Amino acid sequence: MLLDKIEKANDIKKIAPADYPRLASEIRDFLIKKISVTGGHLGSNLGAVELTMALHLSLDLPKDKIIWDVGHQSYTHKLLTGRKEGFENLRKYGGMSGFPKRKESDCDAFDTGHSSTSISAGLGMVKARDLRGTDEHVVSVIGDGSMTGGMAYEALNNAARLTTNFIIVLNDNNMSISENVGGMSNYLNEIRTATGYLDLKAGVHHALRSIPRGDSIARKIKKAKSSVKNLVVPGMYFEDMGITYLGPVDGHDVAAMVKVFGEAMRCKNAVVVHVLTHKGKGFLPAERHPARFHGTSPFDIETGLPSTQKTKADYTDIFSTVMTKLGARDEKIVAITAAMLEGAGLKRFRNLYPNRFFDVGIAEQHAVTFAAGLAAGGMKPIFAVYSSFLQRAYDQIVHDVCLQNLPVVFAIDRAGLVGADGETHQGIFDLSYLSSIPNMTLMAPKNKWELSDMLKFAVDLGTPVAVRYPRGTAYDGLKEFRAPIRLGKSEILYEEEDIALIAVGSMVRTAEGVRHRLKELGYSCSLVNARFVKPFDTDMIREIAKDHRLLVTLEENVESGGFGEHVRTFVDTLDPRPELLTIALPDVYVEHGNLNLLYQEVGIDEESVFKRIVTAYAPLGR
Amino acid sequence: MLLDKIEKANDIKKIAPADYPRLASEIRDFLIKKISVTGGHLGSNLGAVELTMALHLSLDLPKDKIIWDVGHQSYTHKLLTGRKEGFENLRKYGGMSGFPKRKESDCDAFDTGHSSTSISAGLGMVKARDLRGTDEHVVSVIGDGSMTGGMAYEALNNAARLTTNFIIVLNDNNMSISENVGGMSNYLNEIRTATGYLDLKAGVHHALRSIPRGDSIARKIKKAKSSVKNLVVPGMYFEDMGITYLGPVDGHDVAAMVKVFGEAMRCKNAVVVHVLTHKGKGFLPAERHPARFHGTSPFDIETGLPSTQKTKADYTDIFSTVMTKLGARDEKIVAITAAMLEGAGLKRFRNLYPNRFFDVGIAEQHAVTFAAGLAAGGMKPIFAVYSSFLQRAYDQIVHDVCLQNLPVVFAIDRAGLVGADGETHQGIFDLSYLSSIPNMTLMAPKNKWELSDMLKFAVDLGTPVAVRYPRGTAYDGLKEFRAPIRLGKSEILYEEEDIALIAVGSMVRTAEGVRHRLKELGYSCSLVNARFVKPFDTDMIREIAKDHRLLVTLEENVESGGFGEHVRTFVDTLDPRPELLTIALPDVYVEHGNLNLLYQEVGIDEESVFKRIVTAYAPLGR
Repeated sequence: MLLDKIEKANDIKKIAPADYPRLASEIRDFLIKKISVTGGHLGSNLGAVELTMALHLSLDLPKDKIIWDVGHQSYTHKLLTGRKEGFENLRKYGGMSGFPKRKESDCDAFDTGHSSTSISAGLGMVKARDLRGTDEHVVSVIGDGSMTGGMAYEALNNAARLTTNFIIVLNDNNMSISENVGGMSNYLNEIRTATGYLDLKAGVHHALRSIPRGDSIARKIKKAKSSVKNLVVPGMYFEDMGITYLGPVDGHDVAAMVKVFGEAMRCKNAVVVHVLTHKGKGFLPAERHPARFHGTSPFDIETGLPSTQKTKADYTDIFSTVMTKLGARDEKIVAITAAMLEGAGLKRFRNLYPNRFFDVGIAEQHAVTFAAGLAAGGMKPIFAVYSSFLQRAYDQIVHDVCLQNLPVVFAIDRAGLVGADGETHQGIFDLSYLSSIPNMTLMAPKNKWELSDMLKFAVDLGTPVAVRYPRGTAYDGLKEFRAPIRLGKSEILYEEEDIALIAVGSMVRTAEGVRHRLKELGYSCSLVNARFVKPFDTDMIREIAKDHRLLVTLEENVESGGFGEHVRTFVDTLDPRPELLTIALPDVYVEHGNLNLLYQEVGIDEESVFKRIVTAYAPLGR
Repeated sequence: MLLDKIEKANDIKKIAPADYPRLASEIRDFLIKKISVTGGHLGSNLGAVELTMALHLSLDLPKDKIIWDVGHQSYTHKLLTGRKEGFENLRKYGGMSGFPKRKESDCDAFDTGHSSTSISAGLGMVKARDLRGTDEHVVSVIGDGSMTGGMAYEALNNAARLTTNFIIVLNDNNMSISENVGGMSNYLNEIRTATGYLDLKAGVHHALRSIPRGDSIARKIKKAKSSVKNLVVPGMYFEDMGITYLGPVDGHDVAAMVKVFGEAMRCKNAVVVHVLTHKGKGFLPAERHPARFHGTSPFDIETGLPSTQKTKADYTDIFSTVMTKLGARDEKIVAITAAMLEGAGLKRFRNLYPNRFFDVGIAEQHAVTFAAGLAAGGMKPIFAVYSSFLQRAYDQIVHDVCLQNLPVVFAIDRAGLVGADGETHQGIFDLSYLSSIPNMTLMAPKNKWELSDMLKFAVDLGTPVAVRYPRGTAYDGLKEFRAPIRLGKSEILYEEEDIALIAVGSMVRTAEGVRHRLKELGYSCSLVNARFVKPFDTDMIREIAKDHRLLVTLEENVESGGFGEHVRTFVDTLDPRPELLTIALPDVYVEHGNLNLLYQEVGIDEESVFKRIVTAYAPLGR
């Protein structure tokens, strides 16, 4: 095995060029085998095998810096920098992250996870290098999908002014997670399908011949303009901004890439190297179903089918079904995703109502203000988005939606801990950053039926509203509780006395288990489904404070600025004032791993919550 | 006066074309006269007079929609839509806003204030229009400065797919608030200085002649590429994305613009109309000092000088001075602004240390991750930014700075209420959205010396840290209190008993006044300068809780997720537990107006706070 010879950074340089294809093949086999067991990002990694090899052959790590945009394509990089063993516990609790982590290796120059950050970070490192007077290379590797994010453009706009070397590798697989969208994508596609780097000569030649010459031009400006356009000089877009463009180059030809990277390293400015790759390359199921194998659960290598079939619907499925119904009921309903067609559950809506569906690309800022525009125009937009990605659009929610009190619905998926993706993807801040915004209504469902009811309530509300729900299986317990949703009103599930559990969304299920244990020990315990985090049900709390000695709030969100703090502020106005216990997430980033282990780590699992309540209640007597 | 004939939308159409210059001149005189008294945005409005006239002549308001990016250039629009009287109380409490407001006029299609939102909002309205099947025109007017914001690019990328009409007016004055930066700016500048729209014929003709022909091309690809580039076919950048480009057109020639707008309205897709304007046009001081007259206080029309001279330094001045000292002391100090060179107080730093200064354009997202990259590269970056604009980079703070615990300093100016700019510019959320982020340290100074001390402390801390300070005059009282800054430690100014005021930043001054009043009535009252909002001083609170019956927290930030809530959570763990009163901003957007009036409105002025404390203390006895 060639792969066995690679134990640390730069070991790849010992491999003979003739063996590059064999090494690439071994890496692919390794990744497929490992990911089929652990799950993880597959397609993007299979696409970037040769690209990563070429970078490692061209650079000197860790002196030189590679910044992987998003970072889910960094598996080969991990493999080539001595982390082969890490794949045994990839994305597992205490194991190797699926993203670059500075604390994991000095070859990981910058932590990533969200999209479109790499050029900004790389440019910062370039400026630091130049100020220090050192000479390392800095390379930002960004996908064409990430190029739809405005931040990448902001960075390019600044990189254009550089007078020292900075290499931006545009890893163009003509895909976002599913298909890529927009003008930039079309433009890159034109380059792909028009003239290859080596065919440029012929391309220019041909195109110039087709231009009307001399005086005739003067009479045919528009035609000339469009003919000149047809030159498709690759990279003119970048050159127009002042950035050197090299490419396109075959992203599965190591030697060709090494040559171009060598050329790029000699530039005294920012240079885009346009590399054409194939997502899922070398594994047929991944090539055929790129979205499914973008991030995959364990699968059977022979068939490509998941090792374990999903037996229960997850919240995304519920959302998907509700959306088709809402779409049928009301023609004003429109749906928006930022490159998460399938992840956010909008595929069926798109198929049924293509005119009312918008995939804006990885562009959460635009998505939110676009939704505000739709709402100002009389539509009822629903933006389906992951909690951690909505962080990108915080200002747009404050400034474009809530300030004008526009009826935009935020369907916030992956709220709370998400598990294997780890720190960058945990959706643990949304209750805090959303509840401090005026005019915002904020809800979380206890089970799958309530998600459905809340979404219907939300689209009829007529003001900004967010419904947040977790990743994974939709809870199908507590079916018997389905009181109509009323603005700012909670739902009392069990009414007793002494202890009251007031739980938000996913924590209702946990609280139900906790209550069961408390009851077994003889405690009297009420359980309230908060439903609304904003405005929360002050009437309920006022009532419950009368005959309960301990109020426990439970939420899957950081404590700071969360539900518990808001309830506390209100409870302090009451007399008599019951004791309060806030169950929430601590003030730390939570790493990747199995959800149940993570819940234990942060102390919001059933057992931990139960113990904390018993401890808190003890001094209150019985 | 021609202006007298214009009392509502579309009245401008009664003016004879020959009178357009006279009308433009009257509008300029009106604006200069009014703004010289009230203050307001001058330069951008003087530049957009003819552009606004041409739009109003071409469109049918309020049926057609104009979205003004940022919106500070909408004064002529207000004038032409029946709001002439409003200029008497422009930006005053209860008076007309300096920005478009839907609640102010049905001719204001969308509220703006922050940059780069107009294309997204416009595109939403276009899609709503098409779904409704109506035929109004939608026009987004965006400056070249706003085009440096990534959100505008995200929107353009999506607009490229349109198959119905959408007009984007690129109001290009070759300026941001001060000079514009980056590749896009250079590109637009190339168009400005190369071929005018009407000269296009000659331009193409000439350029084509200069290209080597036939077989020679094949041997000179690179030269050809650069020659083709020199064609500077205006707008190729936009056409490459799939957006029709018309222009450039003289932005002070009403007839020419009306003609181009007519052409643009016939397009069945997104079209950029590139309009060249002159910031400050028609008022020499504003043409010469565009940054000073971007937003101006009242001034003398003859001399252009401010009516009242600033006699005391504001916090921005203090920051500016400290930065020059820090820059001298440590070569690792680098400073970043997002197009706020003067507003954020970095001009002197730039003049002294040009290599360590970066103006990234209106691009807060990039600014923050760029800072993270600089920090990862060993530098000590300081990002000077207004509180409300930092909202744009919330995710980057969470994901790129704090997750990696990188030593980026956020110097947050205009934190708290800002006055005349109103709702969109109030910096009232930062304590909330920043304090819920792990690893973040958050400070606010009581006076000008403390700002200096805090900044020095911040750059040495080695982890993410924010220092927030208000707009306006730097407080120079309490000079005698200047204990060294220690992480997480407050400063006790007056130690008594019964009532304890724990104030954050700007509220220390208010609390001092409140304490004085309380003392006059015989109350015993301590005063603590919190200094740190995160981590806050729990030791101090534990001590103070022992001999005080009422703890009052004071902050110029929304209550939700703010300092008061965090303190409350801690105080609830104490026994005995003192009563708590939280003085903070209510859960509403705060409109424009004189700061003292705004403080009264939201109840954080000295008088209101005093009364609330007396009321809260009453039941506690003496």
